[in-house]
Amino acid sequence: MVAVAVLACAPVMGGSAHADEGMWTMDALPLKQMAERYHFTPDKAWVERVTKASARLALGCSASFVSADGLVMTNHHCANECLQQLSDKEHNYFQDGYAAKAVAEEQRCPAMELNQLDTITDVTERVQNALKGKQGEAYTKARQAIESSIEKECAGADAKTWRCDIISLYHGGRVALYKYRRYQDVRLVMAPDQSAAFFGGDPDNFNFPRYDLDMAFLRVYENGKPAKVSAYLPFDGAGPKAGQLVFTSGNPGSTEREVPLAELEFSRNVTVPFVIDMYSALDGVLWQYSRESAAHHQEAQELVFGIENSLKVYRGRVPVLADTKLLAAKAKSEAELRAWINAEEERKKTYGDPWAKNAQALAVKQRIFKPYVMLEAGMGLRGELFGYAKVLVRAASEQQKPDAERLSAFHDARLPALEAELGSTAPIYPELETTQLAFSLTQLRQILGTDDAAVKLVLGKAAPDEVAEQLVKGTKLADPKVRLALFKGGAQAIAASQDPMIVLARKLEPQARALRKQMDDQVAAPTRQATEAMAKARFARNGMASYPDATFTQRLSFGQVKGWNENGAEVPPFTNFAGLYERATGSDPFKLSQPWLAAKPRLNLKTPFDFVSTNDIIGGNSGSPVIDAQGHAVGLIFDGNIHSLGGDFYYDESTNRAVAVDSAAILEALKVVYKNQSLADELLKGHL
Amino acid sequence: MVAVAVLACAPVMGGSAHADEGMWTMDALPLKQMAERYHFTPDKAWVERVTKASARLALGCSASFVSADGLVMTNHHCANECLQQLSDKEHNYFQDGYAAKAVAEEQRCPAMELNQLDTITDVTERVQNALKGKQGEAYTKARQAIESSIEKECAGADAKTWRCDIISLYHGGRVALYKYRRYQDVRLVMAPDQSAAFFGGDPDNFNFPRYDLDMAFLRVYENGKPAKVSAYLPFDGAGPKAGQLVFTSGNPGSTEREVPLAELEFSRNVTVPFVIDMYSALDGVLWQYSRESAAHHQEAQELVFGIENSLKVYRGRVPVLADTKLLAAKAKSEAELRAWINAEEERKKTYGDPWAKNAQALAVKQRIFKPYVMLEAGMGLRGELFGYAKVLVRAASEQQKPDAERLSAFHDARLPALEAELGSTAPIYPELETTQLAFSLTQLRQILGTDDAAVKLVLGKAAPDEVAEQLVKGTKLADPKVRLALFKGGAQAIAASQDPMIVLARKLEPQARALRKQMDDQVAAPTRQATEAMAKARFARNGMASYPDATFTQRLSFGQVKGWNENGAEVPPFTNFAGLYERATGSDPFKLSQPWLAAKPRLNLKTPFDFVSTNDIIGGNSGSPVIDAQGHAVGLIFDGNIHSLGGDFYYDESTNRAVAVDSAAILEALKVVYKNQSLADELLKGHL
Repeated sequence: MVAVAVLACAPVMGGSAHADEGMWTMDALPLKQMAERYHFTPDKAWVERVTKASARLALGCSASFVSADGLVMTNHHCANECLQQLSDKEHNYFQDGYAAKAVAEEQRCPAMELNQLDTITDVTERVQNALKGKQGEAYTKARQAIESSIEKECAGADAKTWRCDIISLYHGGRVALYKYRRYQDVRLVMAPDQSAAFFGGDPDNFNFPRYDLDMAFLRVYENGKPAKVSAYLPFDGAGPKAGQLVFTSGNPGSTEREVPLAELEFSRNVTVPFVIDMYSALDGVLWQYSRESAAHHQEAQELVFGIENSLKVYRGRVPVLADTKLLAAKAKSEAELRAWINAEEERKKTYGDPWAKNAQALAVKQRIFKPYVMLEAGMGLRGELFGYAKVLVRAASEQQKPDAERLSAFHDARLPALEAELGSTAPIYPELETTQLAFSLTQLRQILGTDDAAVKLVLGKAAPDEVAEQLVKGTKLADPKVRLALFKGGAQAIAASQDPMIVLARKLEPQARALRKQMDDQVAAPTRQATEAMAKARFARNGMASYPDATFTQRLSFGQVKGWNENGAEVPPFTNFAGLYERATGSDPFKLSQPWLAAKPRLNLKTPFDFVSTNDIIGGNSGSPVIDAQGHAVGLIFDGNIHSLGGDFYYDESTNRAVAVDSAAILEALKVVYKNQSLADELLKGHL
Repeated sequence: MVAVAVLACAPVMGGSAHADEGMWTMDALPLKQMAERYHFTPDKAWVERVTKASARLALGCSASFVSADGLVMTNHHCANECLQQLSDKEHNYFQDGYAAKAVAEEQRCPAMELNQLDTITDVTERVQNALKGKQGEAYTKARQAIESSIEKECAGADAKTWRCDIISLYHGGRVALYKYRRYQDVRLVMAPDQSAAFFGGDPDNFNFPRYDLDMAFLRVYENGKPAKVSAYLPFDGAGPKAGQLVFTSGNPGSTEREVPLAELEFSRNVTVPFVIDMYSALDGVLWQYSRESAAHHQEAQELVFGIENSLKVYRGRVPVLADTKLLAAKAKSEAELRAWINAEEERKKTYGDPWAKNAQALAVKQRIFKPYVMLEAGMGLRGELFGYAKVLVRAASEQQKPDAERLSAFHDARLPALEAELGSTAPIYPELETTQLAFSLTQLRQILGTDDAAVKLVLGKAAPDEVAEQLVKGTKLADPKVRLALFKGGAQAIAASQDPMIVLARKLEPQARALRKQMDDQVAAPTRQATEAMAKARFARNGMASYPDATFTQRLSFGQVKGWNENGAEVPPFTNFAGLYERATGSDPFKLSQPWLAAKPRLNLKTPFDFVSTNDIIGGNSGSPVIDAQGHAVGLIFDGNIHSLGGDFYYDESTNRAVAVDSAAILEALKVVYKNQSLADELLKGHL
C-alpha cells in the first residue's frame, strides 16, 4: 500500500531526472522528456483537466473524479477508516464490503475530507524576504508569521471552503502557495469486501504478481446534493495495453532523493532501526490481540494494516541505506557542489557552509530524537484518546496567541479541519485503547529509562497496565460531544477539566513543548537553511532542471505499462482473474469471499486484473488514477513492487514499478461479482 | 543480564590491551600489566585455585565453587530454567524462590550440566597441518575430521565424565583443546524470589544504580552424594571496598573486537536490524500473551527475559556500530596491516588477500542470511517441539556417518549431553508453543515470501495459525520418553515416524541442510581462513601480545571497584539496602516480596547491595565470581552497565562497568530475609 507512511519528515531538493523518473509539479512538466521518449505533448486543456480531476484525501491518499456528479475513485485501503466507522454490530462494511442501494442512501464518512487543487502561486520571494538573516527561534517565528499571513489572505473569510497550504519545494529553494477547494461532505458509494481488496494481505503487500481489487468509490456532496464537478476523467472500461504510455496524477508523500548524505546516515543509524523496533513490537502485540477474539480482530484491523505497511516501507529502507554505491554517489555529488561553492569568495559568502550547519542540527537531533518521538510525536502514549487530549490541550493554549504566532496546525485557516476531526463519530474501542496505551507506556519507560522525569510523571509508582486502565476507564473523551465542548471551551475549560487524559496531557505539555521548540529552532530551522542553501547553489550552477522531492502535493509521473526482470526471470506486466483463482487457498489472507466464489463461472477469467508500470510513485500515491494520453482513467494505483521501496532514495527504471488495478477488472467485477450495474453505468456514461 | 545472547557468531582475533581491558586466558595472564597497575602478581597456587574453582553452565552462564562440598554460586537468571522446570501447580519456585530444607532434599535440575575446566592443551600445529591447502567443502570436512579425532582421543571411553572442545583462539591463530570435568547431576540449593533477583526488571536491566539479588546456589553431586571438589573460593562475608583490586573468572561468550571492518558493516546493515525486528515482534506477542492470564504470564516469563535481554544487547549495538570513530580506527588499522603484507612479496605469498576472501564470503552470506536464520537457525519455526523434532531428524542421519564426518554437535563425545537434553522433564506449554510457532510461521512467510518453496512446503494452503495448532496438537514430542525412544531408534525410527512435527522436520531437512552446507563451506570456511591470515600477519608483525576475542571459555579479567561519570554526574560504585526500599513501588517490576517487606526492620540498611567495577566482561560472564587478591569470593557478576554493551566491539575504561551483587548483601539477605542459616554457615565455613 502506498498511502503516506506514519512517520515521514524529509527535507527536499531537486535531483536531475533520468528515464521515466520524476514526480513533476503540474506547473513545470517535463515536456521535452515526454516528447523525446513518448512523442507526446499534453496540451493546456489536458493538463487543466487532469489537474482538476485529481484530488487528495486529507488523511494521506490520492483520488480522482470519474463522473460529473462528484463520483470519486480511490483505494479500498484509503476508505478503511470510513468503512470501519460506518460499521455497527449488524454490518461489518470493512470486511464484507458496502454498496449504497441508491444515491440517496450513500452514507457520509464521519472524518473524511477531500481537497481539489485550485491554483498554485509562487511566493518564494515574499517568504525568503521575511526570513532573511533570521536564525533559530527568530527564524521559526518569522516563518510561522509569514506562512500564517499568506494562508489567511488566501483562504479569506471562507476557510470552510478553501484550504491554503504553503509548500516548500526544493527544500525552500522554491516556495509555493497551494489553494484547494475542500469537500467535507464525502459519502460512501461502494467498496468491495476486504478479502478481494487486500487479497494476499501483508505477505503479498509490495509484491507482484498481484490480484487485488483495492478500490473504493466515494462521492462529494454540496448542500446535501451530489456536487457538480468542473472536471473528471472519463472511465475507459478496456484498460491499458503492454507498452502503452500512461500517467499517474497523485500526491506522493515524501521522498529523500536530494537529502544530504548526513541525513541518510542519520536515517540508517537512528531513525530506521528505531522505528522498525517500535513498530515491530506493536505489530506483535496486535497480532496476539487480534487472535483473542473476532471482535479484537476487527477492532485492530485498520491499525494493523497501517503498522504493517509502514513496517514494510521501513524494512525496505534497510538495504537501500546500506547500498555503498548510493552513498558514494551522494558523497561525490556533494563534494563537487562544495568545491563549486568554495571556488569563489562570492559564492562562499552567499551559501556559507551548509554541511557544517546540517551537522550541527543533526547533533541536536541525535540528542533529542528519542524523547521527541516518544513524548511529542506520540509513540510513547499511543491511542486515540490521549491523542485527542493532547491536541485539545495544545489547541487551547495556541488559540490564545495571535494567528501569526501559532504552530501551523492551529492557524485559523486550519481550525475547521481540526474541529471536524474532534467531532468524528468514529467508534473508539476501550480494550484496544488500553492495550496500546499500556504497551506504549512500557516502551516509554524502556526507551527513556525508569528515572526519566516524564516517565515518573506518567507512571508515578504504578505499572503501565494500571495507569492505562485508569486513564481509559476514567476519561470521557470517547464522546465527540465532550471533545467539542472542551475545544470550544478553550483554555478555561481545559484548565478546569478533571478528565484524567486531559490532566495527563496538561502535565506532560511543558516537556513536550520544550522538545518541540528544540526540534523547531535547533533542528528544523538550521536544517532547512542548510538544504535551501544547497538547493540554491545547485540552481545557480545547473538551473532548476529537475523535479522537487515529494511533498504530498499533486504531481504527475509518466511511464509505460511494463514488467521487469527479477533475478533472470521476466515478470509479465499483467495478471488476470484466472490467476486469482489459482492463487486462492481456503485461508486468510488468500481466501475468496462468497461473491467471488459464486461469480467464477460467469466471469471472463482472461480479464486483466492488476498491472505494473514504470511510473515513479511513492507512499501517498495510493488511489491515484492511471491516465492514458487521451486523459481517460485506465487504472487505479494501489501499491508499488518491492523495488519501489528504494524509490524513497532513487528511481531505478529497471526494477521500480507502480502497481495498479486495471480499469477492465473494475468494470467486470462491478458488473459480474458485485452486480452493481448503476455504478458501472455511471462510470461509462460519466454522469448519474 | 550478561548470559550468552541467543544469536552470536563472531570471528575472533586478539587486539592490543589498554588499561583494565582484557579477557585473558588462564595460561597467558597479563602479569606485567597487573603488576604495573595494581602491584599484584598471582602465584601458581592462586591461578590453579581460581581456575579449578570456576565453572561453566553448559546453557550459557558462569559459576564458581564456594564450598568443598560442591556448593556452586551463580545467578538466579542462570537457574531460571531449572526453577521453572521444578515448579508445579502448588509451587512456583521461579517466582517465589526455593530453599531445600536439608541437603537430602535438594532437587535435581532436569537439564543442567556444569563443566569444570581441567586442562588446556595447545593443538594449533596439528589442526593447521590438517587444514593446509584445503578450501570450501574440503576445508569444512577436514576440520570436522581433525576436531572429531582430537576430541575423541581426549574424552576417551568416558564421554560421560569428560567433555573436550576444540577452541579457535585469535580466530584460528591459535587452536586449543579444552578438557572439562562434566557434572550432570546438579541440584538446586537455594534461590531468592524473582522480584528480589530481578528487581527493576527489563527497565533497569543493563543499568546502574541497581538493587538486584541475582543469585542462586546449586550443588554438584557424584554418585548421588554431594561432590567433594578439588578447589573452591572461600566466601568473604564483608565484600570489597571502593578502589579495591578485583578479578572476575568466567566464560565471556563472544566479542567482536578484532573482527574485520566488513563484518561490522554486515552486522550494522543486516544482522542487527534484522534481529531487532524479529525479536521486537516476538516480544510484543509475548507481552500481550502474558497479560491474558496468570498462567500465560508464568509460562512465558523465562522466554520473555531471554528475548528482552537479547533485545537490549542488540539495541546497544546500534549506536556503537554507527560510531564513525570506531569504524575509522578499524579501517586505519586494517589499511596498515594490508600495507605491511603488501610491502614484501614473501608476505603476500604467505597471507594472500584475506580482505578479498572475506568480502566473497560476505557476499554469499548476504544472499543466504535470511533463509538460513529462518529455516536452519530456527527463527521461522519457533518452540521447543519443533526444535526437538529437528534435532532428532538430524541426529538420526548424522549418527549413520563415521564420527569424523559428522557436524560437531553430533560427535560421539557430545551425544551424552544431547541425550540429557532430549530427556529433559521440563514442562512444555502447548498454548505457548502454538503461539510461538504460529507467529514465527507468519514471520517465515513474511520474510521469505508466499512463493518460497519452504514456505509452501510448511503452509500448503493453510494459515500459520491452523498449521501451528495441528502440529502442536498432533505431536507426541512433549513426552521425553517419546523423544528418547526416537533418538535411540535412530534413522529407522525417524523414517517410520508419523508424528507431524517429525514429518515436517523431515520434509524441511533438505533445504535446511543445503543452507547449512553453504554457510559452512562458502561462508564460515573462507571467513575463518581470512581472519586467521589477518591474525597470523598481526602475530608476525607484533607478537602475540594481547588476549583473544571471547569464546565462551574461561577468562580472567582484572580491575577495581569504581563508579563512573555519567554526563557530568558521578555514579557511586555501591548501592545499599536502604536504596532498594526507596526505589520500591507497589508495582511490578519494582515490587518487593513479603519476606523483604517483613525483614526491613531487622536488616542493616547500610549493607552494600550491588557494586560496579572496571572488569572487562560480556554476555556469558553471568554468574562469574568477583575475587579479591586473596582468592576469596567478594561478589557475584550479574550484569554490565549500559556502556558495557559497547564492550562487544571495544573496551572503554571510562564508562564500561561490570555489575555485581556484593557478598555482604548475599550473607545479610540469607540470614535476615531468607533465614537460611545453614547455607550462610556453609559459605562461611567452606564446607557442609
